[in-house]
Amino acid sequence: MALKSWFNIPPRSHFSLANIPFGIISTAATPTPRPAVAIGDHALDLQLFNAGNGFSALSVIQPHESVFSSPTLNAFASLGKPIHSAVRKYIQTIFLANTPFPHVLKDNISLQKQCLIPLKDVSYHVPMQIGDYTDFFVGMNHAYNCGVLFRGPANALQPNYKHLPVGYHGRASSIVPSGTPIRRPHGQILIDPTAKEKVPVFSPSRKLDLELELGAFLCKGNRMGEPIPIGEAEDYIFGLVLLNDWSARDIQSWEYVPLGPFNAKNFATSISPWVVLTEALEPYRTKGLESDTQVLPYLREGRAENVYHIDLEWELKTPSGDVTTVGKTNGKHLLFSFQQMLAHHSVGGCPMNVGDFFGSGTISGTEDDAKGCLLEWTENGKRSLKLQGGDERTFLLDGDEVTLKGCCGNEDGALVGFGECSGRIEAALDLKF
Amino acid sequence: MALKSWFNIPPRSHFSLANIPFGIISTAATPTPRPAVAIGDHALDLQLFNAGNGFSALSVIQPHESVFSSPTLNAFASLGKPIHSAVRKYIQTIFLANTPFPHVLKDNISLQKQCLIPLKDVSYHVPMQIGDYTDFFVGMNHAYNCGVLFRGPANALQPNYKHLPVGYHGRASSIVPSGTPIRRPHGQILIDPTAKEKVPVFSPSRKLDLELELGAFLCKGNRMGEPIPIGEAEDYIFGLVLLNDWSARDIQSWEYVPLGPFNAKNFATSISPWVVLTEALEPYRTKGLESDTQVLPYLREGRAENVYHIDLEWELKTPSGDVTTVGKTNGKHLLFSFQQMLAHHSVGGCPMNVGDFFGSGTISGTEDDAKGCLLEWTENGKRSLKLQGGDERTFLLDGDEVTLKGCCGNEDGALVGFGECSGRIEAALDLKF
Repeated sequence: MALKSWFNIPPRSHFSLANIPFGIISTAATPTPRPAVAIGDHALDLQLFNAGNGFSALSVIQPHESVFSSPTLNAFASLGKPIHSAVRKYIQTIFLANTPFPHVLKDNISLQKQCLIPLKDVSYHVPMQIGDYTDFFVGMNHAYNCGVLFRGPANALQPNYKHLPVGYHGRASSIVPSGTPIRRPHGQILIDPTAKEKVPVFSPSRKLDLELELGAFLCKGNRMGEPIPIGEAEDYIFGLVLLNDWSARDIQSWEYVPLGPFNAKNFATSISPWVVLTEALEPYRTKGLESDTQVLPYLREGRAENVYHIDLEWELKTPSGDVTTVGKTNGKHLLFSFQQMLAHHSVGGCPMNVGDFFGSGTISGTEDDAKGCLLEWTENGKRSLKLQGGDERTFLLDGDEVTLKGCCGNEDGALVGFGECSGRIEAALDLKF
Repeated sequence: MALKSWFNIPPRSHFSLANIPFGIISTAATPTPRPAVAIGDHALDLQLFNAGNGFSALSVIQPHESVFSSPTLNAFASLGKPIHSAVRKYIQTIFLANTPFPHVLKDNISLQKQCLIPLKDVSYHVPMQIGDYTDFFVGMNHAYNCGVLFRGPANALQPNYKHLPVGYHGRASSIVPSGTPIRRPHGQILIDPTAKEKVPVFSPSRKLDLELELGAFLCKGNRMGEPIPIGEAEDYIFGLVLLNDWSARDIQSWEYVPLGPFNAKNFATSISPWVVLTEALEPYRTKGLESDTQVLPYLREGRAENVYHIDLEWELKTPSGDVTTVGKTNGKHLLFSFQQMLAHHSVGGCPMNVGDFFGSGTISGTEDDAKGCLLEWTENGKRSLKLQGGDERTFLLDGDEVTLKGCCGNEDGALVGFGECSGRIEAALDLKF
């Protein structure tokens, strides 16, 4: 049931009181990045809120107030889940219509004016200092569809696929907040893969694609050499964002043998700015994809509901302004949970740190319109995607803007949403070499 | 010709006045990590040297003195190559027998006692804050030998191999300084790859291997979306270290399709503690491996001598204490230079940052004993390596200690060496899952 607030929160806002996602913002007036939470159409600036004694009724946070003056969420995340929960619930309480602490904000017009900033006036930053970024490939429908395209249905999934969460190390420096323009990359491309002489050309990518994924930030690390048991993995997962793993398919198909994707991925990776805490997602737990394979004990979770029912979609806006919702899918279409990814990633002793970031891999459903990338939609360019306004696409053109959206629930005033993750393609540079 | 010093520098020291490598040290007395250079059997503590007016005769560094109180070399590296050169040459001058600045250190016994620390009393730290770590695969002899093992000689090298420096994103958090114990990792292993049913077991790795590589740290970044031209790439490369990319071959062969090595590599990566500046390596420039393939213009360098003649070797010390020098190779056995790796890595616009780290890939020569890993030496365990003392190995056993060494030149008092990069294998944890 929707929580009633004294504050005006639009009923269809992704940022209802049931959410309280955390991010890092700045404004023209105060360009220093600092933590905030999203509430309706506003950001609550936690640095100013704290400075105005906003946390006066939450004693547990007082020894840690400096986390609200940090340019990333790492310090806050490091405090651990009981503190995240206490802060989230306290902020909910402060905004309740019948808040027991009206003096903090409800009746404090001066503090409201200081620390409630319209989202339209806010600039976003990557919310955490990311030590390492790992991108997994556990959206099995996507893995299967891609496998069919390149190896046929009999060998679509590799023998290891259902035994472990397949993943690769990504490029942390490539991660940018929603809204950052995406430059079309140059790279080596093999125009005719069937030719006997395999000689690449140097060209802007002609097969620029998006990938709709979920991302998870870590709030806890392990000691090198010490695996994280699957039963403890939830303690390490701070929250989730939307992730667009921009991909240059032509660069990828030439470069990726034998060591995996590289320049095809590392030119840019966009994320939505607000980290939705796992606690806010808890009511939306559900089962992931069924597997016919028994996994090894270190990957067995205590409960079947190990992923989240998150309605996901992506839309394409052409340079002429027409918007088409292309793909609709759901966060449940994963073969492994983030907990399983973490247990696997650390089982050999790999050290994890607060701020490390995991991508799920592209999330596709099984329906025709449930594809999380163009590679699948257009069968690697073989069929054309028809858009509103009459345009067609096989891959992204300059000026196209891709926006990912994600939301849990459908009740007015109680949505737990991710907002948007968008990026617009800029023309490739005119390189002289 | 060897530079004569008033200070006692052993003639076979890797750290002659021709070298002056930079690192991050701490001591029992002063546990705060801070910058130093190695000179003979001593570290010159740059924080104390600077505090004692050691840089009084080098005006160019004075606005930047705070870099010598930093726990990493990132701040110093960011100052750029002209400053690195000025500081290196100044320190050489201070130590010359006929130094024009005897008051700084030569005649200042009190400052000598403060800032010259025997290396045996020094602890080492990873010298830079590494944002992203990329491991390449440009040791062509190694790539060929491995390709022969797994695909036969006709297809040993993939079609892309000579066109681009193949690489993958590594795990920055896995990088540790020489001397750090290396825990044998657990992971998924397919015992019989020929079986029809491919079901892995969970086990400590039985094929633990080393990889002898060179690593390069960056001292300059680019803007996202803007490639680094090959002609400018040298400005970005701070210096080199030895790198041991520990590898669990059995975990690797099961997991690496289709996205590349992951847990097989991310449990630990050792580096030598002293960064040898490119300026110190300049006299040892030489040609790399010959290629029969014309690379694309963005990878064409102005001069053929684009790698370094560095004598490399690795030795294995068994638990009984016997030491065997197993592999002898050379830093010149690379198909692409670090400059080419950087030009390729950034050509799609991937952002590089100061402190980013590149590995060359395993460096093997063509001779029988010139193998940089056990996979090659023992043909994936098919033949046994005979060691001093009568032991044999196919892969590493618990208690084995691997040490990499690297050095340029052979003249007494003029060596430009890397010191050592060592690590000893600890038994796997007794996991309960």
